[in-house]
Amino acid sequence: MAKDKKQPRPKAETPKGFRDYFGQDVTERRDMLDRIAQVYHRHGFDPLETSAVETVEALGKFLPDVDRPNAGVFAWQEEAVPGGGTAGDWLALRYDLTAPLARVAAQYRNDLPSPYRRFAMGPVWRNEKPGPGRFRQFYQCDADTVGSASVAADAEICGMLADALEAVGIDRGDYLVRINNRKVLNGVLEAAQVREDQAEDVLRQIDKFDKVGREGVLALLTTGRLDDSGARIDGVGLSEAQAGPVLAFLEAKGADNAATLDNLSTAVGGSATGAEGVEELRQIAAMLAAMGVAEDRAVIDPAVVRGLGYYTGPVFEAELTFEILDEKGRKRQFGSVAGGGRYDGLVERFTGQKVPATGVSIGVDRLLAALRAKGLAGAQVAGPVVVTVMDRDRMSDYQAMAADLRAAGIRAEVYLGNPKNFGNQLKYADKRGAPVAIIQGGDEAERGVVQVKDLILGAKIAAEASVEEWKSQPAQTEVARADLVAEVRRIIG
Amino acid sequence: MAKDKKQPRPKAETPKGFRDYFGQDVTERRDMLDRIAQVYHRHGFDPLETSAVETVEALGKFLPDVDRPNAGVFAWQEEAVPGGGTAGDWLALRYDLTAPLARVAAQYRNDLPSPYRRFAMGPVWRNEKPGPGRFRQFYQCDADTVGSASVAADAEICGMLADALEAVGIDRGDYLVRINNRKVLNGVLEAAQVREDQAEDVLRQIDKFDKVGREGVLALLTTGRLDDSGARIDGVGLSEAQAGPVLAFLEAKGADNAATLDNLSTAVGGSATGAEGVEELRQIAAMLAAMGVAEDRAVIDPAVVRGLGYYTGPVFEAELTFEILDEKGRKRQFGSVAGGGRYDGLVERFTGQKVPATGVSIGVDRLLAALRAKGLAGAQVAGPVVVTVMDRDRMSDYQAMAADLRAAGIRAEVYLGNPKNFGNQLKYADKRGAPVAIIQGGDEAERGVVQVKDLILGAKIAAEASVEEWKSQPAQTEVARADLVAEVRRIIG
Repeated sequence: MAKDKKQPRPKAETPKGFRDYFGQDVTERRDMLDRIAQVYHRHGFDPLETSAVETVEALGKFLPDVDRPNAGVFAWQEEAVPGGGTAGDWLALRYDLTAPLARVAAQYRNDLPSPYRRFAMGPVWRNEKPGPGRFRQFYQCDADTVGSASVAADAEICGMLADALEAVGIDRGDYLVRINNRKVLNGVLEAAQVREDQAEDVLRQIDKFDKVGREGVLALLTTGRLDDSGARIDGVGLSEAQAGPVLAFLEAKGADNAATLDNLSTAVGGSATGAEGVEELRQIAAMLAAMGVAEDRAVIDPAVVRGLGYYTGPVFEAELTFEILDEKGRKRQFGSVAGGGRYDGLVERFTGQKVPATGVSIGVDRLLAALRAKGLAGAQVAGPVVVTVMDRDRMSDYQAMAADLRAAGIRAEVYLGNPKNFGNQLKYADKRGAPVAIIQGGDEAERGVVQVKDLILGAKIAAEASVEEWKSQPAQTEVARADLVAEVRRIIG
Repeated sequence: MAKDKKQPRPKAETPKGFRDYFGQDVTERRDMLDRIAQVYHRHGFDPLETSAVETVEALGKFLPDVDRPNAGVFAWQEEAVPGGGTAGDWLALRYDLTAPLARVAAQYRNDLPSPYRRFAMGPVWRNEKPGPGRFRQFYQCDADTVGSASVAADAEICGMLADALEAVGIDRGDYLVRINNRKVLNGVLEAAQVREDQAEDVLRQIDKFDKVGREGVLALLTTGRLDDSGARIDGVGLSEAQAGPVLAFLEAKGADNAATLDNLSTAVGGSATGAEGVEELRQIAAMLAAMGVAEDRAVIDPAVVRGLGYYTGPVFEAELTFEILDEKGRKRQFGSVAGGGRYDGLVERFTGQKVPATGVSIGVDRLLAALRAKGLAGAQVAGPVVVTVMDRDRMSDYQAMAADLRAAGIRAEVYLGNPKNFGNQLKYADKRGAPVAIIQGGDEAERGVVQVKDLILGAKIAAEASVEEWKSQPAQTEVARADLVAEVRRIIG
């Protein structure tokens, strides 16, 4: 006892930036991911579930200069566990699903099929500053094809992404997969004679195309501009002639893929890399058409610039095009829910061999938010039928009623709190979202009947009325005990 | 480049004691847990998914004397992340699903329904010595009712456990939920006038009942015995008269629950606690009968002693009673796959209030191993139909075939590796467990036909034969392109 007093009571709190998911939150996400998994499975992708913990070396998050891992990961040093890890080794929680894929692709390279199509769904952890809607543990949902240099792999993933969005309930027309290619941009930079040391700056500026538009980007690529506060932003220093192909690239979107590809051919001028990039996009467009994925679902769009700096070939992004009201009540497009592209050197860090890969990552929380915004996040999870307890001694009878309902596939439970205050039982049923409550007092038991109360009809009054008032409601029916299941089924439909 | 050379290549390995789950492993576990979740849902239990990371204080794993957490958990100190956690706070990975439930029950006590039925499924982490079949990350699957002192909650969980075992495919008769009660044992100890300071020793000895039998336990409770090596093991020091009721308790199992309960009544003598415990078991037996859970599914069995030391009321254990062959080829019962019981003080550490709770935990890996041993772990996951690539230029045609198959609900993929070596494509199809391969060369394309190859029939030859030999096999059919889907469907049934 004295010992208990010495230690203060711990706070019942999740650590900062972590959260719990209850009931419907869990079910809705599970349901959404199951639908996506079915689409991925049908496309020949296999599930992979790696351990949450990796060596920091495998994650590639070691900072050799300070002799400890990157602050962005949750990491700790192994203690001396006999027969366990080596004391002093750094372990860390995975911060994405790609680094573990790289490790798996290297570790099992002799056993896995090649190409290897895999999908992964699970939590990742970031040791970063949390904020509104920004957590230190969150779900990712990735699909990647490892070991194929063919853009057929990219086309497949774009088509699969469109299928996945429809599978979770997004209507055709409410989403668009937009596809671009880093090689085309490289060709444009070549055509514009942008020096290698300027390329990164150019990338940074075209990333602002959405925000500042054509004139803004032109200024940023050339002599600079004043921002809203009047501060001067330096330009990259290209001539207007050099900026031309870059802008032509960004604005190359035509009425259809054919027109866009023609515009891009012009924009890349004589660049061989550029021509290769355009040809890749042409093939992707042809393959999508062959797969029955029309341009209203997935389309070539050079204005997709996010990720162009990171990826090495095709890049893609899925946008939800319907409008929602933002926190200020203004209409805006929901925006991006998935992105991906082609990247090299996935396993190179481990094996020294370049292995081409392409993949997509769906923003699980964003997509779920979109489904909720559209009222698509699955039907309300049914609350259980609550069998109330009038006579504590007849618990077996109540358990039998619940068992009968469950045997008929109806979710049901007996009230297990203190049954003394009947009002508490009704409040409990309310909190559980129960569609129906069952009541059987002593006299009803003697007569072999039960009261079946439709709580959806009688919800509002239920919480306030006395047992007697409540019993008199029209939403309440007396049926023979033998008809209990049939009556409940009639009410919940 | 020079920088690359300085850093050695990381090893592509999971940390010691961790593992990855591939394809069917993921699917089978998911399928099993989904079936269990359906049963739990039908019983009114709601899913809860807590964060993987908890404060060490909330887990109750702090060692105040050494100023750091218990070595059994993976723990680390928060760094100074601006706006994030407080530098120096200890965080840890949850080591079970009960400690997070305690935290949640305290944190959300004003919002959760009371009683609160919840189930949780997910990984937990133990910083312990790994061994064969013993990992540092593994799945748990728990169901608990928090806030009900009624043994109706215990009965419900026992019945639900029986239902869950049947839902995953264990036949009635192949499992048994066995139920005991700590209070009965307490009553027996009272009746036997066992001193309080002897109680723990008695518990330790009766735990050996399965191993050493009646005579062994009698010796251990009284004057001691020699073990197999001839070493003397001290006895607890009870008289034979005192040991009598304890042995009567362990051997109280009768022909049916009624007989067992009568034997227990005798064993507890005049102890009020014992009588209360027997009455609780009597109620549980009655409620199980009312729920339609007969004694061949869940039964009162005083020989269940595991957990008696930890729990405060009813304890239960689910055993699989069918025989498997052990690693030495000997028949043995599969044994325990789940256990649980009633415990107090779940949230007391946080709030100072005692909250009664009862729950069960299924050993996910053990149950999955049992299903595999019985050939019940779900049908083999279908490998995809593999569309091979004869002409690299007609990738769109192959993609269209795969898309047609998928649109008909058939899992299908195009070979995305280098198509040059056709033998590699066949080996790939084999590795993928493909039931069917599709082949269309230039001449077949001209004639508007495809070759549909039944790989299940032709599996063995496929990996070795030349394309020409392979094509001549009877398991291969030429059909019109338009009949592709119908033909594949005919083969895979």
